[in-house]
Amino acid sequence: MVKAGIVGAAGYSGKELIRILNAHPDVDVVSLTDKQFIGAGIAEVFPEFLGQIDTVIEDFDVQDVSDLCDVVFLALPHGISCKYVPSLLDNGVRVIDISADYRLKDTGSYQKWYGLVHPDGANLKKAVYGLPELNREKIINTDLLANPGCYPTAILLGLLPVGKIGLNDTFIIADAKTGVSGGGRKPVLPFHFAECNESVRAYKTGVHSHTSEIEMILKDKISKDVSVLFSPHLVPMNRGILATIYIRYSGMDKDKILKTYESFYSDAPFVNVLKEGCLPSTKDVIGTNYCQIGLVFDERTGMMIVVSVIDNLIKGASGQAVQNMNLMFNLEETAGIK
Amino acid sequence: MVKAGIVGAAGYSGKELIRILNAHPDVDVVSLTDKQFIGAGIAEVFPEFLGQIDTVIEDFDVQDVSDLCDVVFLALPHGISCKYVPSLLDNGVRVIDISADYRLKDTGSYQKWYGLVHPDGANLKKAVYGLPELNREKIINTDLLANPGCYPTAILLGLLPVGKIGLNDTFIIADAKTGVSGGGRKPVLPFHFAECNESVRAYKTGVHSHTSEIEMILKDKISKDVSVLFSPHLVPMNRGILATIYIRYSGMDKDKILKTYESFYSDAPFVNVLKEGCLPSTKDVIGTNYCQIGLVFDERTGMMIVVSVIDNLIKGASGQAVQNMNLMFNLEETAGIK
Amino acid sequence: MVKAGIVGAAGYSGKELIRILNAHPDVDVVSLTDKQFIGAGIAEVFPEFLGQIDTVIEDFDVQDVSDLCDVVFLALPHGISCKYVPSLLDNGVRVIDISADYRLKDTGSYQKWYGLVHPDGANLKKAVYGLPELNREKIINTDLLANPGCYPTAILLGLLPVGKIGLNDTFIIADAKTGVSGGGRKPVLPFHFAECNESVRAYKTGVHSHTSEIEMILKDKISKDVSVLFSPHLVPMNRGILATIYIRYSGMDKDKILKTYESFYSDAPFVNVLKEGCLPSTKDVIGTNYCQIGLVFDERTGMMIVVSVIDNLIKGASGQAVQNMNLMFNLEETAGIK
Amino acid sequence: MVKAGIVGAAGYSGKELIRILNAHPDVDVVSLTDKQFIGAGIAEVFPEFLGQIDTVIEDFDVQDVSDLCDVVFLALPHGISCKYVPSLLDNGVRVIDISADYRLKDTGSYQKWYGLVHPDGANLKKAVYGLPELNREKIINTDLLANPGCYPTAILLGLLPVGKIGLNDTFIIADAKTGVSGGGRKPVLPFHFAECNESVRAYKTGVHSHTSEIEMILKDKISKDVSVLFSPHLVPMNRGILATIYIRYSGMDKDKILKTYESFYSDAPFVNVLKEGCLPSTKDVIGTNYCQIGLVFDERTGMMIVVSVIDNLIKGASGQAVQNMNLMFNLEETAGIK
Repeated sequence: MVKAGIVGAAGYSGKELIRILNAHPDVDVVSLTDKQFIGAGIAEVFPEFLGQIDTVIEDFDVQDVSDLCDVVFLALPHGISCKYVPSLLDNGVRVIDISADYRLKDTGSYQKWYGLVHPDGANLKKAVYGLPELNREKIINTDLLANPGCYPTAILLGLLPVGKIGLNDTFIIADAKTGVSGGGRKPVLPFHFAECNESVRAYKTGVHSHTSEIEMILKDKISKDVSVLFSPHLVPMNRGILATIYIRYSGMDKDKILKTYESFYSDAPFVNVLKEGCLPSTKDVIGTNYCQIGLVFDERTGMMIVVSVIDNLIKGASGQAVQNMNLMFNLEETAGIK
Repeated sequence: MVKAGIVGAAGYSGKELIRILNAHPDVDVVSLTDKQFIGAGIAEVFPEFLGQIDTVIEDFDVQDVSDLCDVVFLALPHGISCKYVPSLLDNGVRVIDISADYRLKDTGSYQKWYGLVHPDGANLKKAVYGLPELNREKIINTDLLANPGCYPTAILLGLLPVGKIGLNDTFIIADAKTGVSGGGRKPVLPFHFAECNESVRAYKTGVHSHTSEIEMILKDKISKDVSVLFSPHLVPMNRGILATIYIRYSGMDKDKILKTYESFYSDAPFVNVLKEGCLPSTKDVIGTNYCQIGLVFDERTGMMIVVSVIDNLIKGASGQAVQNMNLMFNLEETAGIK
Repeated sequence: MVKAGIVGAAGYSGKELIRILNAHPDVDVVSLTDKQFIGAGIAEVFPEFLGQIDTVIEDFDVQDVSDLCDVVFLALPHGISCKYVPSLLDNGVRVIDISADYRLKDTGSYQKWYGLVHPDGANLKKAVYGLPELNREKIINTDLLANPGCYPTAILLGLLPVGKIGLNDTFIIADAKTGVSGGGRKPVLPFHFAECNESVRAYKTGVHSHTSEIEMILKDKISKDVSVLFSPHLVPMNRGILATIYIRYSGMDKDKILKTYESFYSDAPFVNVLKEGCLPSTKDVIGTNYCQIGLVFDERTGMMIVVSVIDNLIKGASGQAVQNMNLMFNLEETAGIK
Repeated sequence: MVKAGIVGAAGYSGKELIRILNAHPDVDVVSLTDKQFIGAGIAEVFPEFLGQIDTVIEDFDVQDVSDLCDVVFLALPHGISCKYVPSLLDNGVRVIDISADYRLKDTGSYQKWYGLVHPDGANLKKAVYGLPELNREKIINTDLLANPGCYPTAILLGLLPVGKIGLNDTFIIADAKTGVSGGGRKPVLPFHFAECNESVRAYKTGVHSHTSEIEMILKDKISKDVSVLFSPHLVPMNRGILATIYIRYSGMDKDKILKTYESFYSDAPFVNVLKEGCLPSTKDVIGTNYCQIGLVFDERTGMMIVVSVIDNLIKGASGQAVQNMNLMFNLEETAGIK
């Protein structure tokens, strides 16, 4: 059995990790820590665990956690994870970081998009970007896994197959819509019920930090000329991301594109490509680790539209983290998440 | 023109007051104050006022407000209003208090249900409880109006007609369901979107402070033996209260009850009694100052069920406050709210 | 492996059955039938099954289904199930009926509350009411299981322990709040999004057919004098039932009541009794087969309030049906639903 | 007083028209007709009018309506309005058509995008497209007004100022998000509560009929080379449209664009242009006839993003229809809608 610890257990990603790992056949959750709820039983924080899990939340201590765990999931805000990772690795613990701290490859980009100096450039270089559909082999051998952001997961899965054939026009617009849990569990006015219910809004248009993560991967996999305008929106629902991605495909072979998408994901256990013209709803993937991808080719304007949906807390965070853990520990890739 | 000031302009009741009074034919809003947003334009706090109202929010000062206003609406938390009311009255300003501070008639009850010592017992005695359907005459002549709570408004309007005929069984259950705006605009975990969306819960069952307000009026108007079990619930919607009220009516004349309800509200411009067996939805009154009342007589169990709906922010707060102001200043009762 | 068939696969209860049974370690789903979607793949009806289940929906034929199945789940409207049950039983298939057709014990009550003449009085007598917390032993041996209604499940679980000590006052009010999926999948105006979103309403107050089911069990288990006023409400959320139950407890021993609740469910794998004064939210049980029960004792009015929550489609329908199947086939009671 | 009739009174546009016109100082509503609810009081169809409006819905008869009305609002599905318009005009009634029947200028486009042969090409030529911010003068003098679609209203208001300066790149993407009332009041599965709640989806990407209306106006006002990819989405809320519009602006002068937007709407009573970088929410315009427009210039990609929000039932339908009526009858443009 893999012994796992969850740091930041009292947030939404933490909750999903607990729920998934508690039912995972090959994992023992041996440590739940959270600075905010030390001493509370996890069912006091999340009453849905009542009668099922009664672990007490401890204060986070690197040494304690290292003694107990084979792997640690860091469900922390960016800028915090990177303070603990070096010691955890030194102690021989494998780390799955759900924050943004180890996703970008250079400290300059991190500083530009997150406004912070990265204190651990050495490990930044070593970290593996944990999108299994892209990096399965590297994931298996890493000790430091950077779990992708929720938006990048949806958008990259919608775009990666294009890398096999290239693009004539490398400018991409990704207009994404997310449920409110994406904003975390801390009570702030923009996520106060009566402020965001019955309303939709755009935010951080063009300046959301996930832009850097999306472009970094696409520059590597599609073309170094790719540029992405990422435009997120907040929608009044708990969960789910739908990304509508606009790419010029005129001059390309539609049937070849379709076949490339299908073959690219033929072995991926959690990605389904719909028939041409079929479009997914977020409800079709809520509560699961799946991504569904729909493709529309608009001959009139020469545009291809990719619609990609995931559950932001599962495939966009904790489910994918467990998928990565499964790979890292040579478990069945789908164990605990199918 | 009546010169009006709003204290606590940046909360939900404040917003509704601004919206209503701005369109009121007989009122000039001459002062908006709020300790939290001093110096901001009101359209920065509530972008829906953009291009329509550009008043700047000032710090609240009793003297300044007294110099400017004929009437002041206090949209403040309980325990705060009562600090300012004596000076405002001394300065000759008429006061409409939307908080709970002047609703109960004795300081003992206030201390018991609100946990605070009331500093202004003298004015407590003088204040008029501002339910126009009950106290129209007294309202006209008062300088200190205690605007009813949202739940009490719905429940009392559903029960007052019974006072004309009395009850055989004076025990009443009021099971109420409210939208989330009832919890105010301050971001706290219970009203965080992903915590209360897609969920319903009971809270403060039997111990909600509005119990005292409801019982006080019913003891006076129906029978001193009345006792009320008030049981509120939070429902995932922005606005609206639906109160389901259970009363034993066996031994009473159903037709007489029905006629009493109809005649009781025959002159009330904002209360509609539905045909027997018809039940209202909160959406039928949202955005309005109306109350709709449905009556069901269950012969099998001998119970009469009254279903009463209001918009918690309008008839349950700011709309009723304006209705009261209209009466206090000899304006058309429905001015600005029909 | 138990070979199972689902009749009425294209409704919400059908969908949940498919989802649960597809992951059940001891069950093979060998037949999906639905009169409305004959020939369609189940993933065309419910795209969330895409890439996971590709069973084709067949027309329902008693003989075909009997040849294939050990057990059949009937997820049909009332009045339809009872047409097929006799033949299915004759063919040696065990039946779990999710409709209301075999819940009441006498044809007179069925006719009174459902407005239909029951065609199968003989089997009505034999059918076992499938509330495992009440009838575990009988369930194990039955061939015809009447799965409880969603509301009765929540309300009966909230009341059954009282049967161990009796009641001084046998009149009970059950004010229940349900999500919209309780109304089924057929598009009708009352469940049209813009009609029920952002609104709450009472319906069928005192006359809902579930009243008969609730009273039948309580008369048997608590006192033949029990009478129940059942008062359902529609709340804008997809899933969940919260029942607020009002009972007079004055003269009874509060601590004894509490202990009785705890001991009554000490062996029940899916019922949790909260600490006194703690109240559950529907979100705490959504997606699970659990029931959570909170108890409040209001000394002031002498009333005990029981708040009981379930997922209407799981513990209130398909999850409980699988729990019953597990018992009927000597499988682990929690298999596939924990 | 203008005597107005509403045809199709029982839909959502009809309801809004009734609500607005009932409070309009210069209008008498003299006729409500609807084929589906003949003989019902309007408060039976829409209980929110209880105690306020008790007009009985009549069968629609061209002659009866012509005898009674100065102006008729047609709140009908496309393909129906055009059957009645010729007779109404012949009878001297002025017509405001809220359907799509008279928006396109040629019968060929109508047939292509709506799949119907247009029976009234003559009047099609005469009809005025009723966007007051574009066609104020023509509206004043017309007898046949084609009220714009909800999406085109939001998108065109977001783009029209660009016509003053032209575009370097004439390809435009409009990714729009609408509330569910946009789908009308007829109960169908896609708008069934439990199907669309807690979910977002794309639909009719590139093939929505509003594309033709948007392009027609933009080809006329910006450049005949304009081509628009219109991509609508359904969001779980009752009302509101947010359009996110993507245009290449590199090579253009950002400040000139900003100034052009401000000056273009300086006299428009219902359009507000926000400060650069500020983005509107749909809640900021719900219940009003306003449009709010936010502008973001993303230097990195050279794209300008226009975010435009309206209430789909008011500025996107009935409010704008009344604004047009005000112009047609020389009333204050804002009468009844401010």
